[in-house]
Amino acid sequence: MTYCIAMRLKEGLLFASDTRTNAGVDQIASFRKMHLFQKAGERCFALLTSGNLATSQYLINRLQQQIADNEEANLLAAHSLFDAAELVGDLVKSIIAQTAAGQQNAGVDFGCHVLFGGQIQGAPPSLFHIYPEGNFIEATEDTPYLQIGESKYGKPILDRIIRFDTSLDHATKCALISFDSTMHSNLSVGMPLDIATYRCDSLELSSKRIQENDEYFQRLRNAWSSGIRLLFDDLP
Amino acid sequence: MTYCIAMRLKEGLLFASDTRTNAGVDQIASFRKMHLFQKAGERCFALLTSGNLATSQYLINRLQQQIADNEEANLLAAHSLFDAAELVGDLVKSIIAQTAAGQQNAGVDFGCHVLFGGQIQGAPPSLFHIYPEGNFIEATEDTPYLQIGESKYGKPILDRIIRFDTSLDHATKCALISFDSTMHSNLSVGMPLDIATYRCDSLELSSKRIQENDEYFQRLRNAWSSGIRLLFDDLP
Repeated sequence: MTYCIAMRLKEGLLFASDTRTNAGVDQIASFRKMHLFQKAGERCFALLTSGNLATSQYLINRLQQQIADNEEANLLAAHSLFDAAELVGDLVKSIIAQTAAGQQNAGVDFGCHVLFGGQIQGAPPSLFHIYPEGNFIEATEDTPYLQIGESKYGKPILDRIIRFDTSLDHATKCALISFDSTMHSNLSVGMPLDIATYRCDSLELSSKRIQENDEYFQRLRNAWSSGIRLLFDDLP
Repeated sequence: MTYCIAMRLKEGLLFASDTRTNAGVDQIASFRKMHLFQKAGERCFALLTSGNLATSQYLINRLQQQIADNEEANLLAAHSLFDAAELVGDLVKSIIAQTAAGQQNAGVDFGCHVLFGGQIQGAPPSLFHIYPEGNFIEATEDTPYLQIGESKYGKPILDRIIRFDTSLDHATKCALISFDSTMHSNLSVGMPLDIATYRCDSLELSSKRIQENDEYFQRLRNAWSSGIRLLFDDLP
């Protein structure tokens, strides 16, 4: 499984993903699910994937190849974020169709979900959830966060904290706690985590990998865990 | 959907269930999912169901009928809780088989899950999760709680708080918060709630229905919600 969160807030964008993949409990591996595409000072995108790993990796490779070969349709040449999302959606759909065509139906799901967001100079930042069918929805002020993968365990804390005007720092903290809760309850989501933040109009993504022994994450987990227990004891 | 929790703790047993059923979002209704069976001073059982409502109601009716008709196999005559669980499991399995037999496969799932626990005089309390296949697992000191239905949203708080030696009062509070988180994030779980607690060797179940306007539940929800936000703000 996988867990990814992305938010579109007043201050900017936030992306977070785990790195665990599994095909059965005896085949667990670590793969990056967050990929950044940037053209300094002009545009930057982050893309998170869940679902079939072969499809996800194919998608990333094609997107990179399109840029390297300077193809007519490529992320760095898209006129708008909407066009860029459409490009990703069309690719996802065609990769799945191509993989599924002409083979036995062995019950394998080739689908992958994508969270895709960023900003192009001159337009506001946007964030999309792109479905395996290639269509997509956009995060709005009413629903500023989107999740893919094993999303239920970590949703209650997002529902309680995240609003459109939540600060990026607060949102980052909240995302980390959402991951902590998920990893507590579900083995298929695991460390290390990738976090990327984006401040509106900066046209520069800042990303970080958080390892198991990350000092701040450890302090946060412990403070949250003991805080929850204290709060709980104090309840009426 | 449905959400039910049951716990087997050092002090006794706890059962909690919501009352919302839905067949699509435009067909929502309220049904009791908690049923108690007691023989004063000798034995008492609580039974929670999730899944197909027709199967669940058929199960409850058959169990009541067995008792009313004083059939050889009935819950109040079972020699042990294990035997009682086997009786319930066999019934679940046969109801599903009987309903599914001789009709088109229209993609309807006739399955239901059951949490079943209680105590018979002279033996310790036990708690079982009975599967649609009729077999079952028992809660132990290592894993003192079991869930059925829409269980993921409310699991993190149980994982953080519930241990075998958690007091019944604490466990009740924790169950209510687990329901609150679930109802926040998922419309298919809804008020009112049914709660039943059982103190070891008392041979008497105490049950309560908590309505939307329940004064204590409101205070608890508000204290938790504002406490979480304060705790969150104070994090490093």
